Amino acid sequence: MSTLDIDVYATRTAAGDADEQFIQRWSPRAFSGEPLPIADLHILVEAARWAPSCFNSQPWRFVYAINGDDQWSAMLDVLMDMNQVWAGNAGALIAIVAKKTFDDGNPAPTASFDAGGAWMSMALQAQKMGLASHAMWGFHHDQAPAALGLPEDHAVQAMVAVGKPGERADLPEKYQEREVPSPRKPIEELLFHGKLG
Amino acid sequence: MSTLDIDVYATRTAAGDADEQFIQRWSPRAFSGEPLPIADLHILVEAARWAPSCFNSQPWRFVYAINGDDQWSAMLDVLMDMNQVWAGNAGALIAIVAKKTFDDGNPAPTASFDAGGAWMSMALQAQKMGLASHAMWGFHHDQAPAALGLPEDHAVQAMVAVGKPGERADLPEKYQEREVPSPRKPIEELLFHGKLG
Repeated sequence: MSTLDIDVYATRTAAGDADEQFIQRWSPRAFSGEPLPIADLHILVEAARWAPSCFNSQPWRFVYAINGDDQWSAMLDVLMDMNQVWAGNAGALIAIVAKKTFDDGNPAPTASFDAGGAWMSMALQAQKMGLASHAMWGFHHDQAPAALGLPEDHAVQAMVAVGKPGERADLPEKYQEREVPSPRKPIEELLFHGKLG
Repeated sequence: MSTLDIDVYATRTAAGDADEQFIQRWSPRAFSGEPLPIADLHILVEAARWAPSCFNSQPWRFVYAINGDDQWSAMLDVLMDMNQVWAGNAGALIAIVAKKTFDDGNPAPTASFDAGGAWMSMALQAQKMGLASHAMWGFHHDQAPAALGLPEDHAVQAMVAVGKPGERADLPEKYQEREVPSPRKPIEELLFHGKLG
């Protein structure tokens, strides 16, 4: 059984009639090891690029390597060891990069927020394609800019593993017990009328 | 004809077989003026809260007012005048707030990025419900924290107008011509193999 077949309702409780895609999406670590077809990668970026952004500035950029290609080892090395252990079986790695300035050189204060929207669209599209995706903050932040050839005004927001889901049993043991959809805070802790404080 | 019935393909070109929800979603300014039922607001937050976040920290908070309720004027006043003109007809205003620290007090570097993911889910859920949504950066950043009762480690990422779509003809004239789905950069300008530079 691939990990995307896990019943999310074993660990998650819906609190309203939102579309199933949101509660169904989660962040597995078990991937099959199959390289992601480049055509699939394009579909993921297609979904992402329609996200909204301040002044339609579209501050998102995507730097990728496909499992086994000539950029793969270099990108995998950007991850911290604890993530390399499992992300080495992803179909592709994608660095979600935000351009932190507008084209006129002024700071773009919403670049990270906007890039987060593009990433969410990508994750939901992956889900629609039967692909797993998992964003990581556990990477070598000091090495990433040079490794990915980033100009000074660009910053990695997350490194994403994406690909065909794998088997929980193939994960290192310490990760097998963590291979479940995580719960969320109740709406009452997130939603405030007029004032938060 | 409500603005959500506008043919997005008049101004947008798909570059791959992504789910229709992404290209269909855009950010109209024409709203009907009807108050958003609180039950609908809960469904929007339900969609948003399943977004992924660093350490599952869930740094998103939502501060809202429903059109005409006792918090409405105060929240509307947080918007810049040019946005009040049209957002006054929204069904609700929602401040998307990011908690910029983890619960242990350390900085949460992905808070804005993660909140952007929650906002994207909310926008897509709104679209599924036949609601329009429009995020704004044009608000009084100096006034927002006090007006919304934000602790020091919380920051507004966007003010969102959401509600039933209205008629383009009811917008002020200068906004009528801008009431069209915006295009995007081609994938070739966004996707890079191994290195961005």
